Formats: sequence, C-alpha cells, structure tokens
Amino acid sequence: MAQNKVVGPEIERLIQLLAKLPGLGPRSARRAALHLIKKKDLLLVPLAEAMGVAVEKIGICSVCGTVDTSDPCAICSDPRRDQSVLVVVEDVADLWALERAAAINARYHVLGGTLSPLDGVGPEDLNIAALIERCGSEAIEEVILAINATVEGQTTAHYVTDQLAHLDVKVTRLAHGVPVGGELDYLDEGTLAQALKARTQF
Amino acid sequence: MAQNKVVGPEIERLIQLLAKLPGLGPRSARRAALHLIKKKDLLLVPLAEAMGVAVEKIGICSVCGTVDTSDPCAICSDPRRDQSVLVVVEDVADLWALERAAAINARYHVLGGTLSPLDGVGPEDLNIAALIERCGSEAIEEVILAINATVEGQTTAHYVTDQLAHLDVKVTRLAHGVPVGGELDYLDEGTLAQALKARTQF
Repeated sequence: MAQNKVVGPEIERLIQLLAKLPGLGPRSARRAALHLIKKKDLLLVPLAEAMGVAVEKIGICSVCGTVDTSDPCAICSDPRRDQSVLVVVEDVADLWALERAAAINARYHVLGGTLSPLDGVGPEDLNIAALIERCGSEAIEEVILAINATVEGQTTAHYVTDQLAHLDVKVTRLAHGVPVGGELDYLDEGTLAQALKARTQF
Repeated sequence: MAQNKVVGPEIERLIQLLAKLPGLGPRSARRAALHLIKKKDLLLVPLAEAMGVAVEKIGICSVCGTVDTSDPCAICSDPRRDQSVLVVVEDVADLWALERAAAINARYHVLGGTLSPLDGVGPEDLNIAALIERCGSEAIEEVILAINATVEGQTTAHYVTDQLAHLDVKVTRLAHGVPVGGELDYLDEGTLAQALKARTQF
C-alpha cells in the first residue's frame, strides 16, 4: 500500500495505528487522522485523554473475564444480581449486547472465544476451567449458554455442557426461532425448521 | 441510542469519542473500543501515545495551510520543489492524494473548503486572501486549480481565478476526461462530453 511520505512520521504512525481498528481501512484511517488533527481541541485531545485513562484503569475481571475499571467488575460485585444464574458468552461484546437488551439480571462468564481445532484453539485457551470451578464453588443453579449459533459456538456449547455434567447445575441454551421483526421469506431453512419445532400455543 | 450502563464511564466515554470519527458509528465504535482494550499493549498504548504526540507536535502550516509537525511544513520548506508553481486544493486530504500520486513536484495552497453561500461559507472563511498575497509576493508563475469537479468546487475555482486576474500568473485547472481504467458505460454524460471535446492525437 502506497503511503504518503510528505506527512511527518508522527502523522504516518497515527494513520497506521488507526488503520488497525476494526471498521477502518487505510483510506478511512487517513480521513480519521485528518479529522482528529482538524478537531484537535474537540476530539483529538479528549480522545487521547480517554485512551490514557483506559490504559491506566481498564482491566480484565478475574471472576468473569469481562473488561471493566474495577476487579471484580461492576456486574460480579453487584449484590442485586441473581447469584444463582450464570450466563456464558463467547465475548465481551455479547455480554454488552445482552446487557443492552436488559433481558436478564444475572451474572456472566466470558469464554473469550470458541473451540476451533483448525485455528489451534483448544479448551485450555478458553476461560472454561474457571467456569467449572465457579459452578463447583459458588451456589450456581443454572448456566445459560448464550453462545453464538455458529458451528464453532455450538461445538463449544456441547463441550461446556459435557464438562458441567458431573455438577448439580441446570444447563440451558437460548431459544432458536424467528427474530422479532424478521420476515420468514429471508430466513434460512434451519431457523424455520427450529421455529416450527419449538412452536408455542398462541 | 441505548448505551450500555454496565461499562464504567471511562469505557463509555472512549466509545462515544470513537463514534465521532468518520467511518465509525455507535456500533463499530463499541467494537473498536473493545478491540483497543483487548489489544492494550499492541494497540491502545501506542495509539494513545501517537495521539499525545499529535496533540503536541502537529499544527497548521502558516504558509500553505496543510497540517504538519513543522511550520513551515516539510513541503513549503523543501528547496527541491518547483517554487514557481502552486497547486491549489480544497483540503489537506486532496494534497495527500496528489502527493501519493507523485505527479507533480510543486508546492501547495490549501483553501480549507469551498465557497458555499447556503452554508454561510464566504471567501473570508477560506484561505484565499493568503493565496492572492503569495501570488503577489512570491515568484509564482503558475497556479494549478486542483479543486474538486463539484458545483461548489468549480464556483470556488472561478472566484479564485477572478481574484488572480490582476496578477501576472497563469491559472490552469485539471483536465476532465475518462479516469484511467474507467469504463465508458459507467461514466456520466458530462464527463464523456468533456473527454470527447478534449480528445488528443493517438
């Protein structure tokens, strides 16, 4: 990729680092860098500060594996949360999505990925051992597997279920079906078959 | 848009500032923030540093109006550049594009926008007076108007040409025509008409 040699190395480095963000390519990173430089006081200075704060304060929760400024995180240390239910997610982004939906007032456990033998990701690379330990030592009654409905996700879900089999814990998973607002015509056969199979009384 | 309340205010602020970058919306800003936090040492720390450096060092060149770490900028202070030619561009991004093309070894003048009466942008809001002054005081022989071929851009080009009329300076503009690699079928009638009119001996 042809890069600009007339901008100083400082701007060049800013552009190259911005281009590593998901959603920004080399061209949009240049636009973003220029935007930052032009809006120095309004955007560049505050963003540099916010990143400095993030560097200093944000870490991984040693209990559930999410990112937060405190350890244990705000969710793990919230006494108003149902202590008997753990929602297992692949990634912090999934935890955030569930929290935005505000559909459940439980605690979480972040696996940090899915099993993927082809990519060399085995059980020891994920946050699974800690999950088994939590389920053994804490008074957990139900583990909800809120893992993506992909092949890797479901493989991981099966593995986790097997690992929890010897414990007195109910393991559930999210329902499959038609997304709210979704049109049947656009859905794949697998989803439609599952939605029919799990139909409920109207 | 519903924002996440479980992430600390520090993460929230980082997401909100990232969402102000061109090319990133609220959803991709969340992804970018999470990516930054996960790649703390590889990305967040270097990017925070690069932004700090940018805050401190990068400014506007007082001669041509581009952004750089020195004033006058590296281009304006480069003696190997043709001192008799000025390339007038709307924006720093256009200057960067021309430099990447490496098509001309001249100096630049950045207007900082286009005339747009509806948006309240008049000649005094652009870097035009400085251009007239440069053409009067420096030994400029040619001014190349490399301004976007939009209505506002061409209005601005006409205005600048009028302002330079009393000086002994040749004013030229970029050729219109078929983009290299472009297909005629996809081009608008205006471009095709211009390309025909300005046809050259093969």
